[in-house]
Amino acid sequence: MDWQNKLTQLLGITYPVIQAPMLGVTSPAMVAAISNAGGLGSLPVGGLSPEKTRQLIQEVKSSTDKPYSVNLFAHAIPDMDIAEAEVMRRNLNALIENNELQADIPNLENLTFYNYKEQIAILIEEKVPVVSFTFGIPDDTSIAEMKQHGIVLIGTATCTEEAILLAEKNIDAIVLQGIEAGGHRGSFIGGDVPQVGLMALVPMALKAVNIPLIASGAINSGATVKAAFALGATAVQIGTAFITAHESLAIASYKEALATAKDTDTKLTRAFSGRWARGIKNEFMEYVETSGLSTPPYPIQNSLTGPLRADAQNKDNKAFTNLWSGQAAALSANKLSSAEIFNNIIRETENL
Amino acid sequence: MDWQNKLTQLLGITYPVIQAPMLGVTSPAMVAAISNAGGLGSLPVGGLSPEKTRQLIQEVKSSTDKPYSVNLFAHAIPDMDIAEAEVMRRNLNALIENNELQADIPNLENLTFYNYKEQIAILIEEKVPVVSFTFGIPDDTSIAEMKQHGIVLIGTATCTEEAILLAEKNIDAIVLQGIEAGGHRGSFIGGDVPQVGLMALVPMALKAVNIPLIASGAINSGATVKAAFALGATAVQIGTAFITAHESLAIASYKEALATAKDTDTKLTRAFSGRWARGIKNEFMEYVETSGLSTPPYPIQNSLTGPLRADAQNKDNKAFTNLWSGQAAALSANKLSSAEIFNNIIRETENL
Repeated sequence: MDWQNKLTQLLGITYPVIQAPMLGVTSPAMVAAISNAGGLGSLPVGGLSPEKTRQLIQEVKSSTDKPYSVNLFAHAIPDMDIAEAEVMRRNLNALIENNELQADIPNLENLTFYNYKEQIAILIEEKVPVVSFTFGIPDDTSIAEMKQHGIVLIGTATCTEEAILLAEKNIDAIVLQGIEAGGHRGSFIGGDVPQVGLMALVPMALKAVNIPLIASGAINSGATVKAAFALGATAVQIGTAFITAHESLAIASYKEALATAKDTDTKLTRAFSGRWARGIKNEFMEYVETSGLSTPPYPIQNSLTGPLRADAQNKDNKAFTNLWSGQAAALSANKLSSAEIFNNIIRETENL
Repeated sequence: MDWQNKLTQLLGITYPVIQAPMLGVTSPAMVAAISNAGGLGSLPVGGLSPEKTRQLIQEVKSSTDKPYSVNLFAHAIPDMDIAEAEVMRRNLNALIENNELQADIPNLENLTFYNYKEQIAILIEEKVPVVSFTFGIPDDTSIAEMKQHGIVLIGTATCTEEAILLAEKNIDAIVLQGIEAGGHRGSFIGGDVPQVGLMALVPMALKAVNIPLIASGAINSGATVKAAFALGATAVQIGTAFITAHESLAIASYKEALATAKDTDTKLTRAFSGRWARGIKNEFMEYVETSGLSTPPYPIQNSLTGPLRADAQNKDNKAFTNLWSGQAAALSANKLSSAEIFNNIIRETENL
């Protein structure tokens, strides 16, 4: 099995296997472990403050000399609909009270949102080798600046139209996020959220753009890596398989839920963050979706639900926090180190 | 490339490639062409009268000596909610009037529904070698009768739970219908319609059942066949790629729509038939979905919309008929004979 290709050479990595950036799950230790194992670790910093962004990058750098990527949320922050947000805030406070949680949903005037543009200078200063992004495309100035500093850029597409838009901006590679994938949809074209399965998405995008394509969604084994390459992907991105890793920040009950999740146990929801994301169905999702309330857009809903989710996590209560998961979680819920999970998939692929 | 495996031997075919049964699209000539080419043609007879069923089977038999399959809708006919159906009937009549269509939506008392049980005796009498089914599982008596007569049985699952239920009935093989697939979802477990992508569905089902698995959904090329086999499928089922074939019953504007369809141009809808099915978005779908009307279940809605769709088809008007399609239609919209389309996919696979 020859792993080397155009993308591994561009990225300077041994295996074309990327650990997906999973905010709230991925630790700097996970990122470093994957990069040290020969893949590309991805540090999620979407929506974080510039200070926090720098701190996390430095943590990664202190643990690896290998290439890694930093993942941004490349979207514009929407204006807040105060009335809509206030109704949600009050309802979340009532939910907290009724469920013996301890959390204070912040008043709307205390909400702070960071734009990815505030992070660009730090990425350049810290000499980050690879920047991946989702939810949109960075503005032309940011792209030019990063390219000038030799940063490799990886975009995210959930349909062929998005892949074409990324290609027009001369992005270096594209993550194709199949409908199987856990966590937030990277969608940015507007209208109905694209729900294209990888079996369709990879060949459709391959015909439309001439850029290395990275398949993501339910990839967690030698068989699925082989299938993604057969479809024409140049690399794969793996997320859910690392949620149960030692270095993961996921709570115990979340890891257990992954181990027994059926392929119909996840759904797309806007309940937690205001953006569509795939997670295991739970009480909070049900509450918001049947409440009749209008859900504010990301990142407003995300900030409103943050304290509630944090308290649920402290209590290892999986009913009130997001349980992001792909559609094949149970096949990969191994309680091993990130490097062991990574190496097992590499060996499995080589032995096929 | 060694195509022979447990399933080809059981079915007595050369290539483990099945033409999907597509009611309204698949002609007996298409079925015979695929079986003669070494695959398994599938004749759709779901919901047809016993007489029509026999006639179509005899047409297939007059054109091939090779194994073929006949596809049933293995579901119970629901009771009609007269009030719901009457409101839909009146609205469809208004739609017909407003859009210069000529069709009479039948009065409710004139609707006739056929149960698959009325077809079993004919399948046995006509010595049909393979029976596939969707929308459910035939009753135990029907299964036993067909097995007694040496008929190979192929079920349809859209999630692992359905595959397990089929395995418990000792079905010979299972079509795994990924979310990428066009046409009706075969789902039967109730609750939210399963929406599992093939990249997740094949490995999840493979771990749960020990039966040959047939991958379906967006498979239309050597690359996708290879990918399906890499995932662990024993065979593939191909539908959309045959809609543009010479032997297809699809109207010209439908075929043209497939050739230019984007991967986001299809969606799941209940508008045409009362069951979830994937088709290219059009005016009729939009009308029913935004009408606020309650859509009667299959086959009631299917019968109510039938005359309207028939008239639209006569006028080659793609706005008012179902345009079933998988998510990668544009990659396979070749105006060739069914045998040429089939042979091209076989050769492509062999050359990879």
